[in-house]
Amino acid sequence: MATILSVSGSPSATSRTARLLRHLDDRLRAHGHDVIPFDVRTLPPEALLHADFRHTAIVEATALFERADGIVIGTPVYKAAYSGLLKSLLDLLPQYALAGKTVLPLATGGTTAHVLAIDYALRPVLNSMGPAHITPGWFTLDKDITVGDDGTLTVSPGAAEALAQVTDQFSLALGGRPTLLAATG
Amino acid sequence: MATILSVSGSPSATSRTARLLRHLDDRLRAHGHDVIPFDVRTLPPEALLHADFRHTAIVEATALFERADGIVIGTPVYKAAYSGLLKSLLDLLPQYALAGKTVLPLATGGTTAHVLAIDYALRPVLNSMGPAHITPGWFTLDKDITVGDDGTLTVSPGAAEALAQVTDQFSLALGGRPTLLAATG
Amino acid sequence: MATILSVSGSPSATSRTARLLRHLDDRLRAHGHDVIPFDVRTLPPEALLHADFRHTAIVEATALFERADGIVIGTPVYKAAYSGLLKSLLDLLPQYALAGKTVLPLATGGTTAHVLAIDYALRPVLNSMGPAHITPGWFTLDKDITVGDDGTLTVSPGAAEALAQVTDQFSLALGGRPTLLAATG
Amino acid sequence: MATILSVSGSPSATSRTARLLRHLDDRLRAHGHDVIPFDVRTLPPEALLHADFRHTAIVEATALFERADGIVIGTPVYKAAYSGLLKSLLDLLPQYALAGKTVLPLATGGTTAHVLAIDYALRPVLNSMGPAHITPGWFTLDKDITVGDDGTLTVSPGAAEALAQVTDQFSLALGGRPTLLAATG
Repeated sequence: MATILSVSGSPSATSRTARLLRHLDDRLRAHGHDVIPFDVRTLPPEALLHADFRHTAIVEATALFERADGIVIGTPVYKAAYSGLLKSLLDLLPQYALAGKTVLPLATGGTTAHVLAIDYALRPVLNSMGPAHITPGWFTLDKDITVGDDGTLTVSPGAAEALAQVTDQFSLALGGRPTLLAATG
Repeated sequence: MATILSVSGSPSATSRTARLLRHLDDRLRAHGHDVIPFDVRTLPPEALLHADFRHTAIVEATALFERADGIVIGTPVYKAAYSGLLKSLLDLLPQYALAGKTVLPLATGGTTAHVLAIDYALRPVLNSMGPAHITPGWFTLDKDITVGDDGTLTVSPGAAEALAQVTDQFSLALGGRPTLLAATG
Repeated sequence: MATILSVSGSPSATSRTARLLRHLDDRLRAHGHDVIPFDVRTLPPEALLHADFRHTAIVEATALFERADGIVIGTPVYKAAYSGLLKSLLDLLPQYALAGKTVLPLATGGTTAHVLAIDYALRPVLNSMGPAHITPGWFTLDKDITVGDDGTLTVSPGAAEALAQVTDQFSLALGGRPTLLAATG
Repeated sequence: MATILSVSGSPSATSRTARLLRHLDDRLRAHGHDVIPFDVRTLPPEALLHADFRHTAIVEATALFERADGIVIGTPVYKAAYSGLLKSLLDLLPQYALAGKTVLPLATGGTTAHVLAIDYALRPVLNSMGPAHITPGWFTLDKDITVGDDGTLTVSPGAAEALAQVTDQFSLALGGRPTLLAATG
């Protein structure tokens, strides 16, 4: 129903954040949405870091944000805040790139001591970009995400339930089908 | 007397932030300190964004932080916070890379509406890295910084006085000579 | 259509924040909502400050929050954040007192340098209380609010337009009538 | 050597925060400082909440801040931030009431999920008041503080060590004797 851009801001090639987002993408598709997965780390580093607004890849990324009705923003927590990689992309977008959009903020990290980074660090930055609605987000502990040898991701029950809930609230805010889906670890 | 690393986190090649820091470096040298200018944008973008901790340039940057007694951190304010470029470097440093160090936070921006970004966004990230002392910082408006045709930088009187004051407090916290220097626009 | 609690967190008896909220209450009523004005300063100070959860006035205030579908939270900005008076009330409410509710955050202050206090200080506290939706807020400069000798409040045109816009977005998020109302200074 | 005001911002009569501060006061006295214990909850609630700057008790509290070289600020964490009671007092102090002073921020709370409240909520407010130095603070979990039947306070070993360290750093920043004191639970 809605077009959703699902953005991973992890600099790591084997990121739990990215895998978690791809996992949630399936849930959003089951709600009837068109989901576009996006990894900031696939953008050309030089264009990103030197604020090269006119580089084709940056122009295309900006267009993806424009097209989307909903944006999932996922980031690992480093040094008590979002990743520098994610912020580098946000810095390149227009000031009001989130105007009219619904946003779901997600973070992953090694310690519950960083839970507040979503509300005190990530949300204020997203808010400065003029979104219509930032729905309730979730911080997932690294230890609650397990990646099997075959690449299959498993989320521990408590975290899976919370993620299902914030994903469904985000979907509903976008006018998605209130389909009953079980929390899937 | 002390070794100071003066870090510009601006992605722009013609940055006011960088020029302002180089200007203040002179004042710190006049106080008797050894100042090492550093521009994050000179680091290899790929190493920075893909968290390549072992890249020579990253290893060298980490060593510069280790050697320094004092660190000046300068950043433009984008989207209500520090630059993604600066955060990308901080993300690559050890968790307690600022342990035992004295830090001077500086920001530049287009509007006074972003003044609080130093205290609400930059300081919490710096604090997570364990510094001994973050001295009072300053937010300088872009319009208070003028760059002449010959590259000479002029700071408007009010801003120059405030910058001189926070620079001198930083110097004193590092055990610098309390030399009387006039504020120099 | 919805029941709205409009909360002023100003400690001053002649508060611009309180007057501004009462002014916006009329706009919300014109959208068809039932608006309950509420001044935290009318609560018994001792019950408020000594965390006396069982005091009748606190029990009644808690019930007002429970009944409301939407909450307007207005605060002056002191020391770079919301008022201690407002926080004293929030401290006494249940942890998830905002669950399922739509919230409009508003602040007033003497300088644009405090604009970010809404996003960096007030919203994180409100978010910790589990709201469904915190709609875009607004920071109004004291100088844009004039109180006449007869108590009539006038808001300067730019601020009036912005306030009308965030009030209408809040009303729409609550399912209010999308009536066309002009911005009223 | 220095005069220290040790401020508890807990609204509770049987507060762990207050007891913890009184416990640390002894350590600061052993370092040679003159320590003045202060509980915000002993101030007249009405004066505090209605911004009655001229009330004798408020004038006296302001004078205590003026006299002090160092200030310990202790607060429970409620709703992801400092207490409303503490903020009510800070709101009544002059804008630069902390100018030239050294400040030690301490917090207590029920969950590690609130650790960042010191850096993201409390420090920005304190910084707006112009302190010379906010030394590293500490967040103590409620469960690490035990109060015996005779009122004796015991802090669990890990927390006691951390508290001893931040207290000693604060003392040193105030020019205190670098006496070797063991961490005392």
